[in-house]
Amino acid sequence: MKEKEFIKLIQNTVKSEYIGDDCAYLKDLGIVITQDNLVEDVHFSMKFTDARKLGYKSAMVNISDIAASGAEPAYLSVGLSLPKNTDENFIKDFYQGITDAAQGVKITGGDITGSDKIFISITAIGKTGGRKISSRKNAEPGYKIIVSGNHGSSAAGLKELYLGKKDKFTKIHLMPEAKIEFSKKIAANIKTDYAMTDTSDGLIDALMQIANASGVLMSVNFDKIPYDKDIEKFKDFKDLILYGGEDYELLACVPDDFYVEGAFEIGKVKSGCGVEIDGKILKESDTKFFNHFEEKK
Amino acid sequence: MKEKEFIKLIQNTVKSEYIGDDCAYLKDLGIVITQDNLVEDVHFSMKFTDARKLGYKSAMVNISDIAASGAEPAYLSVGLSLPKNTDENFIKDFYQGITDAAQGVKITGGDITGSDKIFISITAIGKTGGRKISSRKNAEPGYKIIVSGNHGSSAAGLKELYLGKKDKFTKIHLMPEAKIEFSKKIAANIKTDYAMTDTSDGLIDALMQIANASGVLMSVNFDKIPYDKDIEKFKDFKDLILYGGEDYELLACVPDDFYVEGAFEIGKVKSGCGVEIDGKILKESDTKFFNHFEEKK
Repeated sequence: MKEKEFIKLIQNTVKSEYIGDDCAYLKDLGIVITQDNLVEDVHFSMKFTDARKLGYKSAMVNISDIAASGAEPAYLSVGLSLPKNTDENFIKDFYQGITDAAQGVKITGGDITGSDKIFISITAIGKTGGRKISSRKNAEPGYKIIVSGNHGSSAAGLKELYLGKKDKFTKIHLMPEAKIEFSKKIAANIKTDYAMTDTSDGLIDALMQIANASGVLMSVNFDKIPYDKDIEKFKDFKDLILYGGEDYELLACVPDDFYVEGAFEIGKVKSGCGVEIDGKILKESDTKFFNHFEEKK
Repeated sequence: MKEKEFIKLIQNTVKSEYIGDDCAYLKDLGIVITQDNLVEDVHFSMKFTDARKLGYKSAMVNISDIAASGAEPAYLSVGLSLPKNTDENFIKDFYQGITDAAQGVKITGGDITGSDKIFISITAIGKTGGRKISSRKNAEPGYKIIVSGNHGSSAAGLKELYLGKKDKFTKIHLMPEAKIEFSKKIAANIKTDYAMTDTSDGLIDALMQIANASGVLMSVNFDKIPYDKDIEKFKDFKDLILYGGEDYELLACVPDDFYVEGAFEIGKVKSGCGVEIDGKILKESDTKFFNHFEEKK
Protein backbone atom coordinates (compact mmCIF):
# COMPACT_ATOMS: atom_id res chain seq x y z
CA MET A 1 0.00 0.00 0.00
CA LYS A 2 1.08 3.50 -0.71
CA GLU A 3 0.82 6.57 1.47
CA LYS A 4 -2.25 7.89 -0.36
CA GLU A 5 -4.10 4.57 -0.01
CA PHE A 6 -3.28 4.61 3.70
CA ILE A 7 -4.76 8.07 3.98
CA LYS A 8 -8.00 6.87 2.34
CA LEU A 9 -8.15 3.97 4.77
CA ILE A 10 -7.63 6.32 7.72
CA GLN A 11 -10.32 8.64 6.40
CA ASN A 12 -12.75 5.74 6.24
CA THR A 13 -11.91 4.68 9.79
CA VAL A 14 -11.94 8.00 11.61
CA LYS A 15 -14.51 9.72 9.36
CA SER A 16 -12.77 13.04 9.83
CA GLU A 17 -13.92 16.07 7.90
CA TYR A 18 -10.44 17.60 8.19
CA ILE A 19 -8.22 15.24 6.20
CA GLY A 20 -7.26 16.27 2.65
CA ASP A 21 -5.47 19.61 2.76
CA ASP A 22 -1.96 20.59 3.84
CA CYS A 23 -3.55 21.74 7.10
CA ALA A 24 -6.77 21.01 8.95
CA TYR A 25 -8.83 24.17 9.39
CA LEU A 26 -10.39 24.29 12.87
CA LYS A 27 -12.91 27.06 12.38
CA ASP A 28 -14.18 27.17 15.97
CA LEU A 29 -10.66 27.95 17.19
CA GLY A 30 -9.63 30.20 14.28
CA ILE A 31 -6.56 28.08 13.61
CA VAL A 32 -5.08 25.64 11.12
CA ILE A 33 -2.95 22.69 12.22
CA THR A 34 -0.51 20.40 10.43
CA GLN A 35 1.90 17.67 11.48
CA ASP A 36 4.83 15.99 9.70
CA ASN A 37 6.87 12.96 10.71
CA LEU A 38 10.49 12.83 9.57
CA VAL A 39 12.32 9.54 10.02
CA GLU A 40 16.09 9.02 9.75
CA ASP A 41 17.08 7.06 6.64
CA VAL A 42 13.60 7.47 5.20
CA HIS A 43 13.25 11.26 4.91
CA PHE A 44 16.80 12.32 5.63
CA SER A 45 20.26 10.89 6.13
CA MET A 46 22.81 12.21 8.60
CA LYS A 47 25.40 11.50 5.90
CA PHE A 48 24.10 14.57 4.05
CA THR A 49 22.95 16.94 6.76
CA ASP A 50 23.78 18.03 10.29
CA ALA A 51 21.70 18.67 13.40
CA ARG A 52 21.23 22.39 12.80
CA LYS A 53 20.18 22.01 9.15
CA LEU A 54 17.93 19.13 10.13
CA GLY A 55 16.18 21.23 12.78
CA TYR A 56 15.86 24.07 10.29
CA LYS A 57 14.31 21.93 7.57
CA SER A 58 12.01 20.07 9.98
CA ALA A 59 10.53 23.37 11.12
CA MET A 60 10.39 24.83 7.60
CA VAL A 61 8.44 21.96 6.02
CA ASN A 62 5.71 22.49 8.60
CA ILE A 63 5.76 26.26 8.21
CA SER A 64 5.37 25.62 4.48
CA ASP A 65 2.17 23.64 5.12
CA ILE A 66 0.79 26.54 7.14
CA ALA A 67 1.72 28.92 4.30
CA ALA A 68 -0.13 26.60 1.89
CA SER A 69 -3.30 27.09 3.91
CA GLY A 70 -2.98 30.88 3.76
CA ALA A 71 -2.77 31.20 7.56
CA GLU A 72 -0.07 33.03 9.52
CA PRO A 73 2.47 30.60 11.04
CA ALA A 74 2.23 31.04 14.82
CA TYR A 75 3.40 28.06 16.89
CA LEU A 76 5.51 24.91 16.59
CA SER A 77 5.40 21.87 18.87
CA VAL A 78 8.41 19.56 18.50
CA GLY A 79 8.40 15.82 19.23
CA LEU A 80 11.93 14.43 19.02
CA SER A 81 13.10 10.86 19.65
CA LEU A 82 16.82 10.19 19.69
CA PRO A 83 19.21 7.26 20.10
CA LYS A 84 20.57 6.88 23.63
CA ASN A 85 24.09 7.92 22.77
CA THR A 86 23.08 11.29 21.23
CA ASP A 87 25.19 14.06 22.67
CA GLU A 88 24.17 17.41 24.07
CA ASN A 89 25.46 19.30 21.03
CA PHE A 90 23.10 17.52 18.68
CA ILE A 91 20.13 18.69 20.71
CA LYS A 92 21.46 22.24 21.06
CA ASP A 93 22.16 22.49 17.32
CA PHE A 94 18.85 20.89 16.33
CA TYR A 95 16.82 23.36 18.41
CA GLN A 96 19.01 26.21 17.20
CA GLY A 97 18.08 25.21 13.64
CA ILE A 98 14.41 25.22 14.57
CA THR A 99 14.81 28.65 16.13
CA ASP A 100 16.58 29.93 12.98
CA ALA A 101 13.69 28.74 10.81
CA ALA A 102 10.97 29.88 13.19
CA GLN A 103 11.55 33.65 12.92
CA GLY A 104 8.66 34.89 15.01
CA VAL A 105 6.92 31.53 15.16
CA LYS A 106 6.95 30.46 18.83
CA ILE A 107 8.03 27.05 20.08
CA THR A 108 5.55 25.60 22.58
CA GLY A 109 7.61 22.61 23.71
CA GLY A 110 6.62 19.08 22.73
CA ASP A 111 8.34 15.88 23.78
CA ILE A 112 11.79 14.27 23.86
CA THR A 113 12.28 10.52 24.22
CA GLY A 114 14.62 7.68 23.31
CA SER A 115 14.54 5.62 20.10
CA ASP A 116 16.81 3.60 17.81
CA LYS A 117 16.88 6.11 14.98
CA ILE A 118 16.19 9.82 14.91
CA PHE A 119 12.49 10.47 14.70
CA ILE A 120 11.06 13.97 14.42
CA SER A 121 7.40 14.94 14.52
CA ILE A 122 6.57 18.62 14.34
CA THR A 123 3.12 20.10 14.66
CA ALA A 124 2.58 23.64 13.43
CA ILE A 125 -0.33 25.94 14.18
CA GLY A 126 -1.32 28.94 12.10
CA LYS A 127 -3.66 31.79 12.97
CA THR A 128 -6.39 32.50 10.46
CA GLY A 129 -7.20 36.02 11.74
CA GLY A 130 -8.48 38.10 8.81
CA ARG A 131 -7.12 35.80 6.11
CA LYS A 132 -8.99 33.53 3.73
CA ILE A 133 -8.03 29.88 4.16
CA SER A 134 -7.35 27.81 1.03
CA SER A 135 -8.61 24.36 0.15
CA ARG A 136 -7.54 21.99 -2.58
CA LYS A 137 -11.24 21.63 -3.36
CA ASN A 138 -11.61 25.25 -4.44
CA ALA A 139 -10.13 25.31 -7.96
CA GLU A 140 -12.67 26.47 -10.58
CA PRO A 141 -12.53 26.31 -14.38
CA GLY A 142 -11.26 29.67 -15.60
CA TYR A 143 -8.89 30.18 -12.68
CA LYS A 144 -5.21 30.64 -13.48
CA ILE A 145 -2.55 28.34 -12.02
CA ILE A 146 0.34 30.19 -10.42
CA VAL A 147 3.50 29.12 -8.59
CA SER A 148 5.81 31.03 -6.29
CA GLY A 149 9.14 30.01 -7.85
CA ASN A 150 11.58 27.48 -9.29
CA HIS A 151 10.94 23.77 -9.44
CA GLY A 152 13.50 20.99 -9.66
CA SER A 153 16.24 22.68 -7.64
CA SER A 154 15.75 20.61 -4.50
CA ALA A 155 15.75 17.30 -6.41
CA ALA A 156 18.87 18.48 -8.27
CA GLY A 157 20.40 19.20 -4.87
CA LEU A 158 19.67 15.68 -3.68
CA LYS A 159 21.43 14.33 -6.79
CA GLU A 160 24.44 16.53 -6.04
CA LEU A 161 24.52 15.25 -2.46
CA TYR A 162 24.72 11.66 -3.70
CA LEU A 163 27.63 12.77 -5.91
CA GLY A 164 29.36 14.27 -2.88
CA LYS A 165 28.93 17.85 -4.13
CA LYS A 166 27.88 21.01 -2.36
CA ASP A 167 26.35 23.96 -4.25
CA LYS A 168 23.31 26.23 -4.43
CA PHE A 169 21.08 23.23 -5.15
CA THR A 170 22.26 21.21 -2.16
CA LYS A 171 21.60 24.27 -0.03
CA ILE A 172 18.02 24.50 -1.38
CA HIS A 173 17.54 20.80 -0.64
CA LEU A 174 18.88 20.97 2.91
CA MET A 175 17.56 24.39 3.89
CA PRO A 176 14.36 25.18 1.98
CA GLU A 177 12.44 28.41 2.54
CA ALA A 178 8.70 28.38 3.14
CA LYS A 179 6.97 30.93 0.91
CA ILE A 180 5.29 32.88 3.68
CA GLU A 181 5.11 36.22 1.85
CA PHE A 182 3.61 34.71 -1.30
CA SER A 183 0.96 33.05 0.87
CA LYS A 184 0.17 36.28 2.68
CA LYS A 185 -0.18 38.26 -0.57
CA ILE A 186 -2.95 35.90 -1.60
CA ALA A 187 -4.68 35.02 1.67
CA ALA A 188 -4.77 38.53 3.08
CA ASN A 189 -6.20 40.08 -0.11
CA ILE A 190 -8.32 37.59 -2.01
CA LYS A 191 -12.11 37.80 -1.73
CA THR A 192 -13.10 34.52 -3.43
CA ASP A 193 -12.41 30.91 -2.51
CA TYR A 194 -9.11 29.64 -3.93
CA ALA A 195 -6.98 26.49 -3.94
CA MET A 196 -3.40 26.34 -2.68
CA THR A 197 -0.89 23.64 -1.72
CA ASP A 198 2.85 23.42 -1.44
CA THR A 199 4.83 21.34 -3.93
CA SER A 200 6.63 19.31 -1.28
CA ASP A 201 5.79 16.03 -3.03
CA GLY A 202 6.49 17.40 -6.52
CA LEU A 203 4.73 19.73 -8.91
CA ILE A 204 2.72 17.02 -10.70
CA ASP A 205 1.60 15.59 -7.39
CA ALA A 206 0.38 19.04 -6.28
CA LEU A 207 -1.49 19.52 -9.58
CA MET A 208 -3.02 16.06 -9.27
CA GLN A 209 -4.13 16.69 -5.67
CA ILE A 210 -6.00 19.82 -6.67
CA ALA A 211 -7.40 18.22 -9.86
CA ASN A 212 -8.80 15.30 -7.84
CA ALA A 213 -10.09 17.37 -4.92
CA SER A 214 -11.74 20.00 -7.16
CA GLY A 215 -12.82 17.73 -10.03
CA VAL A 216 -11.09 19.87 -12.66
CA LEU A 217 -8.46 19.60 -15.38
CA MET A 218 -5.20 21.36 -14.54
CA SER A 219 -3.69 22.46 -17.85
CA VAL A 220 -0.03 23.47 -17.67
CA ASN A 221 2.46 24.75 -20.24
CA PHE A 222 5.83 23.23 -19.47
CA ASP A 223 7.70 26.26 -20.83
CA LYS A 224 6.06 28.52 -18.30
CA ILE A 225 7.28 26.56 -15.26
CA PRO A 226 10.12 28.54 -13.71
CA TYR A 227 13.35 26.65 -13.04
CA ASP A 228 17.03 27.39 -12.60
CA LYS A 229 18.66 26.87 -16.03
CA ASP A 230 21.69 25.28 -14.34
CA ILE A 231 19.70 22.10 -13.71
CA GLU A 232 19.77 21.45 -17.47
CA LYS A 233 23.11 19.75 -16.84
CA PHE A 234 21.08 16.79 -15.60
CA LYS A 235 19.74 14.69 -18.49
CA ASP A 236 16.46 14.12 -16.67
CA PHE A 237 15.99 17.75 -15.66
CA LYS A 238 12.41 17.78 -16.94
CA ASP A 239 11.57 14.98 -14.53
CA LEU A 240 13.25 16.91 -11.74
CA ILE A 241 11.02 19.88 -12.51
CA LEU A 242 7.80 17.88 -12.74
CA TYR A 243 8.30 15.12 -10.17
CA GLY A 244 11.19 16.13 -7.92
CA GLY A 245 9.74 16.99 -4.53
CA GLU A 246 10.80 19.19 -1.63
CA ASP A 247 10.96 22.54 -3.43
CA TYR A 248 8.42 23.89 -0.93
CA GLU A 249 7.12 26.36 -3.47
CA LEU A 250 3.43 27.21 -3.42
CA LEU A 251 0.99 26.39 -6.20
CA ALA A 252 -2.32 28.26 -6.25
CA CYS A 253 -5.44 28.47 -8.40
CA VAL A 254 -6.94 31.93 -8.24
CA PRO A 255 -9.37 33.96 -10.37
CA ASP A 256 -7.79 35.14 -13.62
CA ASP A 257 -8.05 38.81 -12.64
CA PHE A 258 -6.46 38.41 -9.19
CA TYR A 259 -2.94 39.82 -9.44
CA VAL A 260 -0.19 38.31 -7.28
CA GLU A 261 3.08 40.20 -7.46
CA GLY A 262 6.03 37.95 -8.28
CA ALA A 263 3.87 34.94 -9.20
CA PHE A 264 4.52 32.80 -12.29
CA GLU A 265 1.44 31.77 -14.23
CA ILE A 266 1.98 28.23 -15.53
CA GLY A 267 -1.47 27.35 -16.88
CA LYS A 268 -5.22 27.37 -16.50
CA VAL A 269 -7.86 25.39 -14.68
CA LYS A 270 -10.31 23.83 -17.18
CA SER A 271 -13.42 21.69 -17.07
CA GLY A 272 -12.52 18.01 -17.07
CA CYS A 273 -10.34 15.94 -14.81
CA GLY A 274 -6.69 15.25 -14.31
CA VAL A 275 -3.51 17.05 -15.32
CA GLU A 276 -2.32 17.94 -18.81
CA ILE A 277 1.13 19.16 -19.76
CA ASP A 278 1.27 20.94 -23.15
CA GLY A 279 -2.08 19.44 -24.10
CA LYS A 280 -1.15 15.86 -23.22
CA ILE A 281 -3.20 14.31 -20.40
CA LEU A 282 -1.07 12.45 -17.86
CA LYS A 283 -2.05 8.89 -17.08
CA GLU A 284 -1.44 7.38 -13.63
CA SER A 285 1.11 5.11 -15.30
CA ASP A 286 3.08 8.10 -16.65
CA THR A 287 3.56 9.56 -13.25
CA LYS A 288 6.43 9.04 -10.90
CA PHE A 289 5.00 10.10 -7.60
CA PHE A 290 7.15 10.87 -4.68
CA ASN A 291 6.39 8.17 -2.16
CA HIS A 292 7.71 8.19 1.37
CA PHE A 293 7.50 4.41 1.45
CA GLU A 294 10.23 4.15 -1.17
CA GLU A 295 13.32 4.86 0.87
CA LYS A 296 15.61 7.55 -0.44
CA LYS A 297 18.85 6.42 1.19
CA MET B 1 21.78 12.69 30.01
CA LYS B 2 18.27 12.16 31.22
CA GLU B 3 15.02 13.43 29.80
CA LYS B 4 14.73 16.26 32.32
CA GLU B 5 18.26 17.50 31.59
CA PHE B 6 17.44 17.45 27.90
CA ILE B 7 14.38 19.59 28.57
CA LYS B 8 16.51 22.14 30.45
CA LEU B 9 18.93 22.25 27.54
CA ILE B 10 16.07 22.77 25.06
CA GLN B 11 14.63 25.51 27.25
CA ASN B 12 17.98 27.29 27.23
CA THR B 13 18.23 27.00 23.44
CA VAL B 14 14.74 28.00 22.35
CA LYS B 15 14.01 30.33 25.29
CA SER B 16 10.36 29.34 25.21
CA GLU B 17 8.01 30.60 27.89
CA TYR B 18 5.74 27.59 27.32
CA ILE B 19 7.85 24.62 28.42
CA GLY B 20 7.25 23.19 31.92
CA ASP B 21 3.62 22.06 32.18
CA ASP B 22 1.77 19.07 30.75
CA CYS B 23 0.48 21.45 28.08
CA ALA B 24 1.57 24.79 26.67
CA TYR B 25 -1.12 27.43 27.22
CA LEU B 26 -1.47 29.66 24.15
CA LYS B 27 -3.53 32.48 25.60
CA ASP B 28 -3.95 34.43 22.36
CA LEU B 29 -5.65 31.44 20.76
CA GLY B 30 -7.57 30.26 23.84
CA ILE B 31 -6.06 26.79 23.56
CA VAL B 32 -3.62 24.43 25.22
CA ILE B 33 -1.40 22.07 23.22
CA THR B 34 0.58 18.96 24.09
CA GLN B 35 2.53 16.36 22.12
CA ASP B 36 3.80 12.88 23.02
CA ASN B 37 6.11 10.58 21.10
CA LEU B 38 5.67 6.84 21.58
CA VAL B 39 8.36 4.57 20.18
CA GLU B 40 8.11 0.81 19.72
CA ASP B 41 10.30 -1.13 22.18
CA VAL B 42 10.90 2.02 24.21
CA HIS B 43 7.37 2.97 25.31
CA PHE B 44 5.47 -0.12 24.26
CA SER B 45 6.04 -3.62 22.92
CA MET B 46 3.81 -5.35 20.39
CA LYS B 47 4.40 -8.51 22.46
CA PHE B 48 2.02 -7.07 25.06
CA THR B 49 -0.47 -4.99 23.09
CA ASP B 50 -2.27 -4.90 19.75
CA ALA B 51 -2.97 -2.17 17.22
CA ARG B 52 -6.35 -1.17 18.63
CA LYS B 53 -5.16 -0.96 22.25
CA LEU B 54 -2.06 0.91 21.09
CA GLY B 55 -4.15 3.49 19.24
CA TYR B 56 -6.41 3.82 22.27
CA LYS B 57 -3.57 4.38 24.72
CA SER B 58 -1.69 6.74 22.40
CA ALA B 59 -4.73 8.99 22.21
CA MET B 60 -5.54 8.66 25.91
CA VAL B 61 -2.11 9.72 27.19
CA ASN B 62 -2.47 12.97 25.25
CA ILE B 63 -6.04 13.52 26.37
CA SER B 64 -4.72 13.02 29.93
CA ASP B 65 -2.25 15.88 29.43
CA ILE B 66 -5.09 18.13 28.28
CA ALA B 67 -7.10 17.09 31.34
CA ALA B 68 -4.09 17.97 33.52
CA SER B 69 -4.23 21.52 32.18
CA GLY B 70 -7.91 21.85 33.04
CA ALA B 71 -8.89 22.48 29.40
CA GLU B 72 -11.54 20.59 27.43
CA PRO B 73 -9.99 18.02 25.05
CA ALA B 74 -10.99 19.08 21.53
CA TYR B 75 -8.69 17.84 18.74
CA LEU B 76 -6.06 15.18 18.05
CA SER B 77 -3.48 15.22 15.26
CA VAL B 78 -1.83 11.83 14.66
CA GLY B 79 1.65 11.31 13.20
CA LEU B 80 2.28 7.63 12.54
CA SER B 81 5.36 5.99 11.02
CA LEU B 82 5.21 2.29 10.25
CA PRO B 83 7.45 -0.45 8.88
CA LYS B 84 6.96 -1.15 5.17
CA ASN B 85 5.34 -4.53 5.65
CA THR B 86 2.57 -3.25 7.95
CA ASP B 87 -0.79 -4.49 6.77
CA GLU B 88 -4.02 -2.65 6.27
CA ASN B 89 -5.62 -4.15 9.37
CA PHE B 90 -3.02 -2.67 11.67
CA ILE B 91 -3.85 0.81 10.42
CA LYS B 92 -7.60 0.24 10.59
CA ASP B 93 -7.38 -1.13 14.13
CA PHE B 94 -4.98 1.57 15.31
CA TYR B 95 -7.26 4.38 14.13
CA GLN B 96 -10.28 2.54 15.51
CA GLY B 97 -8.53 2.54 18.90
CA ILE B 98 -7.91 6.26 18.60
CA THR B 99 -11.56 6.80 17.71
CA ASP B 100 -12.66 4.70 20.73
CA ALA B 101 -10.53 6.83 23.06
CA ALA B 102 -11.45 10.12 21.43
CA GLN B 103 -15.18 10.19 22.34
CA GLY B 104 -16.08 13.61 21.06
CA VAL B 105 -12.50 14.72 20.53
CA LYS B 106 -12.07 15.23 16.78
CA ILE B 107 -9.22 13.84 14.70
CA THR B 108 -7.72 16.47 12.40
CA GLY B 109 -5.46 14.19 10.36
CA GLY B 110 -1.69 14.29 10.79
CA ASP B 111 0.85 12.29 8.83
CA ILE B 112 1.65 8.71 7.86
CA THR B 113 5.11 7.62 6.68
CA GLY B 114 7.50 4.69 6.61
CA SER B 115 10.04 3.76 9.31
CA ASP B 116 11.87 0.74 10.75
CA LYS B 117 9.90 0.57 13.98
CA ILE B 118 6.48 1.89 14.89
CA PHE B 119 6.67 5.52 15.84
CA ILE B 120 3.65 7.47 17.03
CA SER B 121 3.48 11.18 17.73
CA ILE B 122 0.14 12.60 18.79
CA THR B 123 -0.61 16.26 19.34
CA ALA B 124 -3.69 17.16 21.33
CA ILE B 125 -5.41 20.51 21.54
CA GLY B 126 -7.74 21.60 24.32
CA LYS B 127 -10.15 24.53 24.44
CA THR B 128 -9.84 26.77 27.46
CA GLY B 129 -13.27 28.45 27.07
CA GLY B 130 -14.51 29.47 30.51
CA ARG B 131 -12.15 27.21 32.44
CA LYS B 132 -9.20 28.11 34.60
CA ILE B 133 -5.94 26.62 33.29
CA SER B 134 -3.60 24.97 35.80
CA SER B 135 0.14 25.41 36.18
CA ARG B 136 2.64 23.40 38.18
CA LYS B 137 3.89 26.74 39.47
CA ASN B 138 0.64 27.52 41.29
CA ALA B 139 0.84 25.40 44.46
CA GLU B 140 0.67 27.51 47.65
CA PRO B 141 1.40 26.58 51.26
CA GLY B 142 -1.92 25.72 52.92
CA TYR B 143 -3.38 24.11 49.78
CA LYS B 144 -4.45 20.50 50.04
CA ILE B 145 -3.04 17.82 47.73
CA ILE B 146 -5.69 15.68 46.06
CA VAL B 147 -5.62 12.82 43.57
CA SER B 148 -8.30 11.40 41.33
CA GLY B 149 -7.78 7.70 42.09
CA ASN B 150 -5.64 4.60 42.59
CA HIS B 151 -1.89 4.53 42.10
CA GLY B 152 0.28 1.52 41.35
CA SER B 153 -2.25 -0.42 39.27
CA SER B 154 -0.64 0.32 35.90
CA ALA B 155 2.84 -0.66 37.11
CA ALA B 156 1.35 -3.83 38.63
CA GLY B 157 -0.22 -4.50 35.23
CA LEU B 158 3.14 -4.17 33.50
CA LYS B 159 4.57 -6.73 35.95
CA GLU B 160 1.70 -9.09 35.16
CA LEU B 161 2.33 -8.67 31.44
CA TYR B 162 5.94 -9.74 31.90
CA LEU B 163 4.62 -12.81 33.77
CA GLY B 164 2.32 -13.62 30.86
CA LYS B 165 -0.83 -12.81 32.84
CA LYS B 166 -3.97 -10.88 31.94
CA ASP B 167 -6.19 -9.26 34.59
CA LYS B 168 -7.70 -5.95 35.71
CA PHE B 169 -4.22 -4.47 36.18
CA THR B 170 -3.00 -5.37 32.70
CA LYS B 171 -6.14 -3.74 31.33
CA ILE B 172 -5.39 -0.54 33.28
CA HIS B 173 -1.84 -0.59 31.92
CA LEU B 174 -2.87 -1.15 28.30
CA MET B 175 -6.04 0.94 28.26
CA PRO B 176 -5.79 3.78 30.77
CA GLU B 177 -8.60 6.30 31.20
CA ALA B 178 -7.88 10.02 31.22
CA LYS B 179 -9.60 11.70 34.17
CA ILE B 180 -11.59 14.24 32.15
CA GLU B 181 -14.47 14.64 34.61
CA PHE B 182 -12.19 15.18 37.62
CA SER B 183 -10.39 17.86 35.62
CA LYS B 184 -13.62 19.57 34.64
CA LYS B 185 -14.93 19.60 38.23
CA ILE B 186 -11.90 21.65 39.22
CA ALA B 187 -11.21 23.81 36.17
CA ALA B 188 -14.81 24.81 35.52
CA ASN B 189 -15.49 25.83 39.14
CA ILE B 190 -12.32 27.04 40.84
CA LYS B 191 -11.76 30.78 41.23
CA THR B 192 -8.14 30.81 42.39
CA ASP B 193 -4.94 29.68 40.68
CA TYR B 194 -4.19 26.00 41.24
CA ALA B 195 -1.61 23.37 40.28
CA MET B 196 -2.42 20.16 38.44
CA THR B 197 -0.51 17.46 36.56
CA ASP B 198 -1.12 13.86 35.64
CA THR B 199 0.86 11.09 37.31
CA SER B 200 2.01 9.53 34.04
CA ASP B 201 5.62 9.41 35.24
CA GLY B 202 4.72 8.27 38.76
CA LEU B 203 3.22 9.90 41.84
CA ILE B 204 6.54 10.99 43.35
CA ASP B 205 7.63 12.49 40.06
CA ALA B 206 4.38 14.49 39.86
CA LEU B 207 4.84 15.72 43.45
CA MET B 208 8.45 16.64 42.72
CA GLN B 209 7.51 18.54 39.57
CA ILE B 210 5.03 20.70 41.45
CA ALA B 211 7.39 21.12 44.45
CA ASN B 212 10.18 22.36 42.17
CA ALA B 213 8.00 24.56 39.97
CA SER B 214 6.17 26.17 42.91
CA GLY B 215 9.04 26.23 45.44
CA VAL B 216 7.03 24.41 48.10
CA LEU B 217 7.15 21.28 50.27
CA MET B 218 4.65 18.61 49.25
CA SER B 219 3.80 16.69 52.43
CA VAL B 220 2.01 13.38 51.82
CA ASN B 221 0.67 10.70 54.15
CA PHE B 222 1.29 7.34 52.55
CA ASP B 223 -1.79 5.79 54.15
CA LYS B 224 -4.03 8.28 52.42
CA ILE B 225 -2.89 7.39 48.90
CA PRO B 226 -5.64 5.31 47.31
CA TYR B 227 -4.62 2.00 45.78
CA ASP B 228 -6.17 -1.34 44.88
CA LYS B 229 -5.46 -3.66 47.83
CA ASP B 230 -4.85 -6.54 45.38
CA ILE B 231 -1.46 -5.06 44.46
CA GLU B 232 -0.24 -6.00 47.96
CA LYS B 233 0.61 -9.40 46.49
CA PHE B 234 3.68 -7.71 45.03
CA LYS B 235 6.44 -7.39 47.64
CA ASP B 236 7.41 -3.96 46.30
CA PHE B 237 3.83 -2.66 46.10
CA LYS B 238 4.77 0.53 47.94
CA ASP B 239 7.26 1.32 45.20
CA LEU B 240 4.59 0.62 42.60
CA ILE B 241 2.32 3.15 44.29
CA LEU B 242 4.97 5.85 44.65
CA TYR B 243 7.12 5.40 41.56
CA GLY B 244 5.18 3.25 39.08
CA GLY B 245 4.11 5.47 36.22
CA GLU B 246 1.30 5.42 33.69
CA ASP B 247 -1.67 5.51 36.04
CA TYR B 248 -2.85 8.70 34.32
CA GLU B 249 -4.54 9.86 37.46
CA LEU B 250 -4.58 13.59 38.19
CA LEU B 251 -2.83 15.23 41.12
CA ALA B 252 -3.92 18.74 42.07
CA CYS B 253 -3.11 21.35 44.71
CA VAL B 254 -6.17 23.45 45.51
CA PRO B 255 -7.28 25.71 48.37
CA ASP B 256 -8.22 23.75 51.48
CA ASP B 257 -11.86 24.85 51.30
CA PHE B 258 -12.36 23.95 47.62
CA TYR B 259 -14.43 20.76 47.57
CA VAL B 260 -13.90 18.28 44.74
CA GLU B 261 -16.39 15.44 44.76
CA GLY B 262 -14.73 12.03 44.63
CA ALA B 263 -11.21 13.37 45.25
CA PHE B 264 -8.78 11.74 47.69
CA GLU B 265 -6.83 14.14 49.89
CA ILE B 266 -3.34 12.72 50.34
CA GLY B 267 -1.55 15.60 52.05
CA LYS B 268 -0.83 19.31 52.33
CA VAL B 269 1.34 21.88 50.61
CA LYS B 270 3.75 23.47 53.11
CA SER B 271 6.48 26.11 53.11
CA GLY B 272 9.83 24.57 52.25
CA CYS B 273 10.99 22.55 49.30
CA GLY B 274 10.80 19.00 48.07
CA VAL B 275 8.56 16.07 48.87
CA GLU B 276 8.01 14.38 52.23
CA ILE B 277 6.25 11.08 52.81
CA ASP B 278 5.04 10.58 56.42
CA GLY B 279 7.36 13.36 57.61
CA LYS B 280 10.48 12.01 55.90
CA ILE B 281 11.96 14.26 53.22
CA LEU B 282 12.88 12.37 50.05
CA LYS B 283 16.40 12.84 48.77
CA GLU B 284 17.18 12.72 45.04
CA SER B 285 19.10 9.50 45.75
CA ASP B 286 16.02 7.86 47.31
CA THR B 287 13.95 8.35 44.23
CA LYS B 288 13.47 5.98 41.37
CA PHE B 289 12.27 8.19 38.60
CA PHE B 290 10.58 6.82 35.60
CA ASN B 291 12.95 7.55 32.73
CA HIS B 292 12.08 7.00 29.11
CA PHE B 293 15.76 6.56 28.32
CA GLU B 294 15.88 3.35 30.33
CA GLU B 295 14.18 0.93 27.98
CA LYS B 296 11.28 -1.02 29.39
CA LYS B 297 11.38 -4.00 27.08
